[in-house]
Amino acid sequence: MKLINGFSRLNKNEKYDWIAQELGLKNGELKKFLEMFSIKDSTIQNTFDSFSENTIGNFHLPFGVVPNMIINKSVYTLPMVIEESSVVAAVGHTAKFWSSRGGFKAQVISTIKVGHIHFMWKGESHRLKSFFKKVECLLKIELVPFTRSMDKRGGGIVSIALIDRTKDEPNYYQIEMKFETCDAMGANFINTVLEETSKILQTKALEDSGLIGHEKNIDVIMCILSNYTPECLVRSSVECPISELGQIDNFEFSRRFIQAVKIAEIDISRATTHNKGIMNGIDAICLATGNDFRAIESCLHTYACRTGTYRSLTQAKIQDETLFFEITIPLSLGTVGGLTKLHPMAKFSLDLLGRPSSQELMQIVASVGLAQNFAALRALITTGIQKGHMKMHLSNILDSHNIDAVQKESAIEYFSNKMVSVSAVRDFIQSLSLNLPS
Amino acid sequence: MKLINGFSRLNKNEKYDWIAQELGLKNGELKKFLEMFSIKDSTIQNTFDSFSENTIGNFHLPFGVVPNMIINKSVYTLPMVIEESSVVAAVGHTAKFWSSRGGFKAQVISTIKVGHIHFMWKGESHRLKSFFKKVECLLKIELVPFTRSMDKRGGGIVSIALIDRTKDEPNYYQIEMKFETCDAMGANFINTVLEETSKILQTKALEDSGLIGHEKNIDVIMCILSNYTPECLVRSSVECPISELGQIDNFEFSRRFIQAVKIAEIDISRATTHNKGIMNGIDAICLATGNDFRAIESCLHTYACRTGTYRSLTQAKIQDETLFFEITIPLSLGTVGGLTKLHPMAKFSLDLLGRPSSQELMQIVASVGLAQNFAALRALITTGIQKGHMKMHLSNILDSHNIDAVQKESAIEYFSNKMVSVSAVRDFIQSLSLNLPS
Repeated sequence: MKLINGFSRLNKNEKYDWIAQELGLKNGELKKFLEMFSIKDSTIQNTFDSFSENTIGNFHLPFGVVPNMIINKSVYTLPMVIEESSVVAAVGHTAKFWSSRGGFKAQVISTIKVGHIHFMWKGESHRLKSFFKKVECLLKIELVPFTRSMDKRGGGIVSIALIDRTKDEPNYYQIEMKFETCDAMGANFINTVLEETSKILQTKALEDSGLIGHEKNIDVIMCILSNYTPECLVRSSVECPISELGQIDNFEFSRRFIQAVKIAEIDISRATTHNKGIMNGIDAICLATGNDFRAIESCLHTYACRTGTYRSLTQAKIQDETLFFEITIPLSLGTVGGLTKLHPMAKFSLDLLGRPSSQELMQIVASVGLAQNFAALRALITTGIQKGHMKMHLSNILDSHNIDAVQKESAIEYFSNKMVSVSAVRDFIQSLSLNLPS
Repeated sequence: MKLINGFSRLNKNEKYDWIAQELGLKNGELKKFLEMFSIKDSTIQNTFDSFSENTIGNFHLPFGVVPNMIINKSVYTLPMVIEESSVVAAVGHTAKFWSSRGGFKAQVISTIKVGHIHFMWKGESHRLKSFFKKVECLLKIELVPFTRSMDKRGGGIVSIALIDRTKDEPNYYQIEMKFETCDAMGANFINTVLEETSKILQTKALEDSGLIGHEKNIDVIMCILSNYTPECLVRSSVECPISELGQIDNFEFSRRFIQAVKIAEIDISRATTHNKGIMNGIDAICLATGNDFRAIESCLHTYACRTGTYRSLTQAKIQDETLFFEITIPLSLGTVGGLTKLHPMAKFSLDLLGRPSSQELMQIVASVGLAQNFAALRALITTGIQKGHMKMHLSNILDSHNIDAVQKESAIEYFSNKMVSVSAVRDFIQSLSLNLPS
């Protein structure tokens, strides 16, 4: 590839042309390829293009649905966007399984979001504390133009605190602000309020008679929400008498299940993959509802290592001959704002879920995570995950070849005791065609 | 929603009908909506449907490109799939910025993947160790049918070890297997080999004369790869004399930059968001190239807390009046297998990158993560992130309304000192139309 100036100012066709030329493609070939995936209605296509920058096309992910998910006695049909096979099927089986065993029970524990003004300040810290005490109440009043709309919806600023971090780093302080953002994820609201607060603080410090010389200088390094929201917590759980687990050997199943969760508590290598499976479910429904999965991922994984060791996000126990399985996680989600209304399929996902509040969505998402983990553990401790995976994987690869049903059948038989890979399948299909009567 | 039996066995139209009925939509209305997003070529649409289960449509994400990314002196045009505004623009600016300052320098440190057989075993542990020593060599031979194809490509099993974890949990042991999987991410290969290994071990234990009574019973709980791959490491860095940073005040910029990275080293709330930003870049290129972002997320975040405290994945320092900025992260990626060839846009992404090996892709992805972090930090320590964000956000909201250029202009002016939200913009637009001459 060559360097180019002003690429972002080119229109879509000019962008196509430049890329095609660089890739040595014929004129129009790239455009034709990318337009296979574009939306006919140009207004909608323009909306998608405007979500990001330098957009030249669409990337499709399959949109699947899972019916029969019972959470707090309501039946949901879940929207899931994921490219990995087996995840939707796994949640589907688990939803059905628990639907006849009382369903999922979920509750929101807290909904506090948080952000910080990180700043450096040199001086006698008691004078900074006095200054902060003086301006604390004024801050909320001066911020009204930025909080009015959120206040009206029942949210807004919950608390403002000065935190002395000078033990960790010389001269380092934080203003920690906590927020209630109602049905919005709240990133823009929080970041705007933080930036405005820092401007007010800097101005007030310059005017303050209690601060002397360089103490008047609040050296703000940055203002930013935290994606780590351990006070925005939700719990979901399932439970069932062991005798009603419907397995070949219910007690052996429970023992192995508990042991598998225990291993994810004590082994970091396993905990990572255990939680990765949970995220397969969580990200799929977050993507579908227009939520930012990077924010959710970073928060959950940080929470997983809050004790100093990275651990499982789910817990299991047996008590009174009953299996209890639960997940408690921080989830900062929105059902308004962001892409939730702008992306037509995100909007459809929320319609499919009955237009939930963000708290209801927290309960749904946590339950999907728990469901996915249950399915993964069940497969791992019984047949192993490869049986199902390889069947799907083989089927996907076979579908990409132009073969008939009989050939497909013999491929499935051949690979029943062999490693499935794209090249092994290709080799097998080639051997098939060599053996065909001419 | 109602419960339903046999949903997965319904065909697509029947699925549409059931959902439409449950949502109270008119016959055909849902189908028409979902088909707006479907691919005309039914073979390709079927391929997408087969990636997952219960697929009723496609979820579009914008596919953007970033030219001018120089890594190890090669110029790349990066494919990025992300719905969050500013990320592609941010990487674009950073790519350009560093292209005239030596570009990114990246190197792969190691490429080892890992998996475990987690099992319980009761007995004298020295007898288990003797047994393992005896069968260790046999294992590799018996596994040949499953490793042959990977061996041919230069990969395969690197090591097999017995690990005594009984200090953490009574009777708990692991077989830890390390692998080289070449250009494949390797999940199917690793899981298949682990499951086969466990079968062989269980059989050999039953036959072994050195094991007595219940010692012959290797109680395998599960066989599974680990997404935590701290021995599959890549590093990327940039550096530049401070005087050539091109900022208004280069030394002040460097000081603030270093301080911002330091804060992400010592403050967990900031570290989470700092790394979240890195993942904005990394996930976007991983999605574009058909890699599993949940696996990559879980690995990086676990790595971020390897010291017992969750920390920044990037480091910065000033030495000899030069700013050094680098990222060292585990990345387990594939450029063959999985979706890489099956998803037409993933295949195109790899073409756009010049069909990289997995090691080359590791270098590219790490560099994109570093680039995104540089852009985020630069914005945070200078203008703040809201200026750019809100401009984009406002523009997206305005685009969803049917207004003319003059109205758009006045909205931009009005919101220059106010909180942007969907409802605030709607209110403003309504007030505009009230004031319009009739």
